[in-house]
Amino acid sequence: MIEPAFILVRPQMGENIGAAARAMLNFGLTRMRIVDPRDGWPNSRAVAMASGAGRLLDNAGLFKDVATAVADCDYVFATTARPRELVKPMVTPERAMEMARAMAAEGKKVGVLFGPERAGLENEDVALANAIVTVPVNPEFPSLNLAQCALLMGYEWRRQTEEIAPEIMGLARTEFAQRIDVEKLGDHFEARLDDAGFFYPEEKAEGMKLNLRNMWARLNLTRAEVQTFHGMLRQIAWKLKRQGDE
Amino acid sequence: MIEPAFILVRPQMGENIGAAARAMLNFGLTRMRIVDPRDGWPNSRAVAMASGAGRLLDNAGLFKDVATAVADCDYVFATTARPRELVKPMVTPERAMEMARAMAAEGKKVGVLFGPERAGLENEDVALANAIVTVPVNPEFPSLNLAQCALLMGYEWRRQTEEIAPEIMGLARTEFAQRIDVEKLGDHFEARLDDAGFFYPEEKAEGMKLNLRNMWARLNLTRAEVQTFHGMLRQIAWKLKRQGDE
Repeated sequence: MIEPAFILVRPQMGENIGAAARAMLNFGLTRMRIVDPRDGWPNSRAVAMASGAGRLLDNAGLFKDVATAVADCDYVFATTARPRELVKPMVTPERAMEMARAMAAEGKKVGVLFGPERAGLENEDVALANAIVTVPVNPEFPSLNLAQCALLMGYEWRRQTEEIAPEIMGLARTEFAQRIDVEKLGDHFEARLDDAGFFYPEEKAEGMKLNLRNMWARLNLTRAEVQTFHGMLRQIAWKLKRQGDE
Repeated sequence: MIEPAFILVRPQMGENIGAAARAMLNFGLTRMRIVDPRDGWPNSRAVAMASGAGRLLDNAGLFKDVATAVADCDYVFATTARPRELVKPMVTPERAMEMARAMAAEGKKVGVLFGPERAGLENEDVALANAIVTVPVNPEFPSLNLAQCALLMGYEWRRQTEEIAPEIMGLARTEFAQRIDVEKLGDHFEARLDDAGFFYPEEKAEGMKLNLRNMWARLNLTRAEVQTFHGMLRQIAWKLKRQGDE
């Protein structure tokens, strides 16, 4: 599978190119292309900012215009902050990267265009894309910079490739107590509380016990936590009895 | 609907606080809290960086520690880059903000903790949260900065609108205890257990206490359950003392 290429169009500050490289690598993306950068290429400020992601810059392709940069792509997205008068499908970052994922799995090459700081892509650039991607920002404060835009697209790419949600894996790996042990914990507390006259008045006792059982069951205690609760109850009982004996 | 508070814990550089404010406002979020910032508060570098998002800083609450900052929250997420040994549900940013959206719609207050640059949140901070959020970054290059992490959480907040899963609605409607009450319950048990010599040997005491705090936070106790636990502990103590006196 060929991952999408992130294509920086006429980027101005080297720092932003470096930051975009870092943002990409966070999500495992390594294919960067650069179109007509303002300060030439290579750019030492870009290298300094990229630090651990420097190899993206080393391998970045340099192109003189957008048409050349997207020439080998099967599908191109243009990221834009503001609406365009161009008639073109407009998709969310999520949908765009879902599409990119599906296309990449089919052996297709996908490109994503990012415009220069401030001005953004020209209509001529956008015209070369198959679809427009717009991040749903607050219309009263749209201030995403180049690296942040690359970050969000990278995040969505990665998200679309995740197989198993981490909460499911985390849940699956937790050593929960077996139901029988939770039951015994309930017995232990119920016995001590019964001794202590907790279930009062008598006509409410059954309901109170049911509520407690329900609580223990829903807490999803681990094995260790069940032991902790037993231990706490035992230790308090022991200490208070001993105080009584003194 | 009360939007989630983004809580910056011991942030170091003012620039990053300002950048986080901008990232938040991009997605319409305005409630920022700041815990013990390294360079004091207010911070002129933060203001300079925030530019159009300066009012977030003007309105930001300043807190001396995490416990105070989350005291009025009904549910707290901790953002972490690396896995923790603490037993706590781990969710994606998407799921976290889906949960936050549902809880906010029910009038609940949600907090999201962001750790200091480099080090990230301490285990003691994470112990106060109900759940952990981890951005699924490339394990070989995890380099999200504070503002980028806030950006991704804000993006997911904005992205979550309708289509709330029924299990999330159930969660949102549950009357969870506020963090301050969970904290007090922890204090109550810790005091009794300390009296009882539970935290032994001494060199392990701190770790045992942290594990207990973490457990109380992750159990998602309801208000009624917190009262039940207080009541159980009080009643057992009372009964056993009385037996001693006889």
